[in-house]
Amino acid sequence: MTARFIVLYETPADPAAFDRHYHAVHIPLVRRLPGLRGYTIGRDMVAVRGGAPYYLVAELEWDTMEELQAAFASPEGHATAADAAHLQELAPVRSMLFTVDEIVL
Amino acid sequence: MTARFIVLYETPADPAAFDRHYHAVHIPLVRRLPGLRGYTIGRDMVAVRGGAPYYLVAELEWDTMEELQAAFASPEGHATAADAAHLQELAPVRSMLFTVDEIVL
Repeated sequence: MTARFIVLYETPADPAAFDRHYHAVHIPLVRRLPGLRGYTIGRDMVAVRGGAPYYLVAELEWDTMEELQAAFASPEGHATAADAAHLQELAPVRSMLFTVDEIVL
Repeated sequence: MTARFIVLYETPADPAAFDRHYHAVHIPLVRRLPGLRGYTIGRDMVAVRGGAPYYLVAELEWDTMEELQAAFASPEGHATAADAAHLQELAPVRSMLFTVDEIVL
C-alpha cells in the first residue's frame, strides 16, 4: 500500500528567501530520495475552512511504508532531513507520514 | 492541471463518533461529487516535525480547478459542505484547495 509523507509549511517571515532555498536546495535533495514515486507541491492555496491556508504543502509518495522508511534512513534521506531542519528555521512546519487508504469511486 | 482539496482534521473529542459519522455519512457524500478523480484518506499518522500529527487527512482530486469548482457548486457539493460543517463540530479542521505542481523525478 502506498505510503505518503506530507509537509505543511506556514507562511515564512521572508517568503522570497524561503522560496529561493526550497527551489535551489530542497527540491534537488528530495528528488534524489531512493524509491520516490511522486512529489507534488501546492502553493497559492485558497482556504475553505479553519482560517489561513498553509503557504506550501509538499507530498512525497513511495510504493510501500518500508520503502519510505528505507529512503529516510539512507544518506540521501539524512541530507534531506538536515536541510528540512534549516527550512524549519524559515517557516513553521508540521509534517507526518501515513499509509494511503484509497477510497473506491 | 490537477486540482486538489485537502482536509486536515485534528483529533476529535470523541473519535468513535467522528469515525462513525465520517464513514457512514461523509464518505458516501464525497463519492457522489461530480468529476471526482481521486479520494484518499490517511489515518494513524506518525508525526515527523511540528508536534502532534493530524487525526485524519483527506485528499480529493479533480482534473482541473474548473471541475473542482463546478463540483463544489453542484447540489452534491452543497450536501457535502453541509455535512462538513457538522464534522467541524466534532473535530477542528483546516482545509484548502490548490492547483497541483508535479515535480518531475
